[in-house]
Amino acid sequence: MRGLIFFLLLVVTSAVVKAQTRPNIILFFVDDMGWVDTSVPFGDSMVVVNKRYHTPNMQRLASEGIKFTNAYATPVCTPTRISLLTGINAAHHGVTNWTSPVKDRSTDVADDEMAPASWLVNGLSSIKGTAKTIFANTYPQLLKQAGYFTVHVGKAHWGSMGTPGSNPYNLGFMVNIAGHAAGHPQSYLAKDNFGNITGKAVAQAVPDLEEYFGSDTFLTEALTLEAIKALEAPINNKQPFYLNMAHYAIHTPIQGDKRYVQKYIDAGLDSIEANYASLIEGMDKSLGDLMNYLKEKGIEKNTVILFMSDNGGLSLVPPRGGVAHTHNLPLKSGKGSVYEGGIRVPMIVKWPGVVKANTRSDQYIIVEDFFPSILEIAGLKNYNIVQQVDGKSFVSQLKNPGYKNSSRSLVWHFPNKWQPNDGPGINYKSAIRQGDWKLIYNMRDGSKELYNLQLDVGELQNLASVERKKVDALAILLSHQLRQWKAVMPSFKTTGKIVPLPDRVQ
Amino acid sequence: MRGLIFFLLLVVTSAVVKAQTRPNIILFFVDDMGWVDTSVPFGDSMVVVNKRYHTPNMQRLASEGIKFTNAYATPVCTPTRISLLTGINAAHHGVTNWTSPVKDRSTDVADDEMAPASWLVNGLSSIKGTAKTIFANTYPQLLKQAGYFTVHVGKAHWGSMGTPGSNPYNLGFMVNIAGHAAGHPQSYLAKDNFGNITGKAVAQAVPDLEEYFGSDTFLTEALTLEAIKALEAPINNKQPFYLNMAHYAIHTPIQGDKRYVQKYIDAGLDSIEANYASLIEGMDKSLGDLMNYLKEKGIEKNTVILFMSDNGGLSLVPPRGGVAHTHNLPLKSGKGSVYEGGIRVPMIVKWPGVVKANTRSDQYIIVEDFFPSILEIAGLKNYNIVQQVDGKSFVSQLKNPGYKNSSRSLVWHFPNKWQPNDGPGINYKSAIRQGDWKLIYNMRDGSKELYNLQLDVGELQNLASVERKKVDALAILLSHQLRQWKAVMPSFKTTGKIVPLPDRVQ
Repeated sequence: MRGLIFFLLLVVTSAVVKAQTRPNIILFFVDDMGWVDTSVPFGDSMVVVNKRYHTPNMQRLASEGIKFTNAYATPVCTPTRISLLTGINAAHHGVTNWTSPVKDRSTDVADDEMAPASWLVNGLSSIKGTAKTIFANTYPQLLKQAGYFTVHVGKAHWGSMGTPGSNPYNLGFMVNIAGHAAGHPQSYLAKDNFGNITGKAVAQAVPDLEEYFGSDTFLTEALTLEAIKALEAPINNKQPFYLNMAHYAIHTPIQGDKRYVQKYIDAGLDSIEANYASLIEGMDKSLGDLMNYLKEKGIEKNTVILFMSDNGGLSLVPPRGGVAHTHNLPLKSGKGSVYEGGIRVPMIVKWPGVVKANTRSDQYIIVEDFFPSILEIAGLKNYNIVQQVDGKSFVSQLKNPGYKNSSRSLVWHFPNKWQPNDGPGINYKSAIRQGDWKLIYNMRDGSKELYNLQLDVGELQNLASVERKKVDALAILLSHQLRQWKAVMPSFKTTGKIVPLPDRVQ
Repeated sequence: MRGLIFFLLLVVTSAVVKAQTRPNIILFFVDDMGWVDTSVPFGDSMVVVNKRYHTPNMQRLASEGIKFTNAYATPVCTPTRISLLTGINAAHHGVTNWTSPVKDRSTDVADDEMAPASWLVNGLSSIKGTAKTIFANTYPQLLKQAGYFTVHVGKAHWGSMGTPGSNPYNLGFMVNIAGHAAGHPQSYLAKDNFGNITGKAVAQAVPDLEEYFGSDTFLTEALTLEAIKALEAPINNKQPFYLNMAHYAIHTPIQGDKRYVQKYIDAGLDSIEANYASLIEGMDKSLGDLMNYLKEKGIEKNTVILFMSDNGGLSLVPPRGGVAHTHNLPLKSGKGSVYEGGIRVPMIVKWPGVVKANTRSDQYIIVEDFFPSILEIAGLKNYNIVQQVDGKSFVSQLKNPGYKNSSRSLVWHFPNKWQPNDGPGINYKSAIRQGDWKLIYNMRDGSKELYNLQLDVGELQNLASVERKKVDALAILLSHQLRQWKAVMPSFKTTGKIVPLPDRVQ
């Protein structure tokens, strides 16, 4: 008898516990945020750029979780965002550059020498056969099927207008607030109605925020308030949620957030850089507000927060102030580049009870790793999807900060022309990292560069001429991977020939 | 011991039962559907217009529920939609005409004689102080707070672009698919991308349906498929849901639904009316698909379905075919009119286990009654809201088809100019019904008409000159109500004077 009662109690209790322990998951995803755009040092120590910024809530998150010093995205936003959602490397999914809001339009800048690669200019699609898209399943779809309440707030930029991927609804999100085909806001200001003009089609006008029109609410704040509103229902219903908190900040236009800008001017920054710093601090406030909200609701301990950026910090002048390509120092170059400044980004994970507070992992990971990781965090296994996933789960790494794997290779592939003028590492590049070694392949002239990131994180000493065997080995590895993924390449206008893979060039 | 086990089992069971018995609620809301636009007779017998149409799923719904023969909306869409969501009569909420997608723009047609009433041209708002709006709470907000999963699919039309009410998110809906500031679709055809043109702001282009662009899917079908997709999550999570299935059909543009149009041409209808009939049958198929889906998911018995239209059937020629104002016979006139053809609409309620199958209620109700009724169906009591609700719950009527109340009065108030030419009962009218009596007040000339609906549903015999006391009593009742609600009135251009209330005119 007593045994039976005990059994009954166990059944009841375990059902309740199970319902409560499926963790909520928040991806706090910042746009164009560089590796040093924060007062949290992601290198061994604070550098001069870290000292410019105030991100107390990121500090708090890092002190409660694990910091990844070698987390990577792709050089520009859409490829990263699609790799994130699908687990596929950009060279493999084929959306190698950012997608235009206008369908069928390549954003590649014209070039005298190179004809464009046939990359998938319309982005990600949930429907097989959509022209110029990659058809794949997303982890929000899988989470939704598994009972998660899935919410997207902010920048989407997964596909062009008039295609399924333009709409987060079609990518597994039950709620979508302010996400569409555009990659930046027309304005951060509610006074400007976030760029909405009656009777005009402004592709970058932010949708869904009518409640704030004409007010003083900065876009970052409005998105945070909307995210909190959207979470009320699942929290009240004790339903696990996934929140894709995808800020438009800190992408251009570099508009000042009035709440913070003066203190950066007082600290001596020029007006552009003070505005930039205010975008960062507004974003950081949003993180703090969400963390406080979780605490207030008593779900802090059952909520995983992942902090990530979609590419390196912008280093073009203008629109940035100061000296070009110095904004991510000690990293070289910035957004659009395959140098570290373009691809290495801040990443933090807080998972109470699983991840040790104030820890650090130096093992490199890449954005497609989020797909298997998030599904593993949610406890999902054996899901059916149409694509081959390239990402590897970093969950074991979360649990073991000392984890090291020097044999894994990461690939970046940018067969595109992003800017009218080639900058450092910008336009027509591929790269591979294995252990501390990184090879860069310049498609224009077939040249290769080799760096040792452990000794030279700033990629200043090209060791290609001395480490010939390493160059050859990495060129073969990179080529093998690109071949396997059927990665697209540009061609030479004069000969009509496709750019050869790096192992075919001496 | 045994007692304790029993107690434990009871606790577990009752929790489960409670979770399961909060009913799901579907409002199946059709646009511009007239009282006779269906093969279900809402009068005493089938009339000639009923015989034109095929609505087998409405027949099925009526055979499983209760049919309301005297259900009323307002003459045009936005006033009805706001009364629905807030429980406030249109004369009281002040949004007396349809709202333009463009903010601050009155849709009243200019008139030589009358200057417009100061009605609230921007519609409903969730934010206090929004210019030219009524600020009120909605029942979806209350349902959401109570743990319902609230979904809007289809036409919204609650407020102008750039105001909070343009967006169903702000009105209590967790999910919004295809609802915005516009009152009709630019196109029902996915081949036309539902009116979306890249780079052009088409106010009536239907949002959110990118998955169907270029396909053969008719808008009504696409909305149904999306509604079913949106319900998957709450059904899987055993969460009660509210679905606002608000079809764009059967509003203009009267485009043919290819699946059905030929059979109506074969039956002898002209091409316009065949298209109209196909819009109806496509809408009816949607109802059947939803009913089948509920059955398939095993939730049919715990789901309440309410069928309603937002105003009477359109009777203007063009855009309708045939002879003007004959489309709603035996009812007089159509959309825009305070005659029965403009305001009396089809209504059916199915509530398994509560409402007896195949029953009928002749007691009049009006659209603001849905607010307290739906909240009562969901089991909500003692909610805090900012507005005074005018509607009365019809739940007791659902349970008692024979219920009769001849003392209640219903008011319609249309101090607006909807069409360039006054039609029967169209432009500048108020009306009141009490028991079988109905008084109409013509603002232009102060004249009054009186009809007995029991004897003369077609409003052909004006009894005002014979039943003077009845006219006076209803004029006083109507005026009292309009005064209490601070209902707006137009004014005369020549004198600048406001149109007097009917009790001030002999």
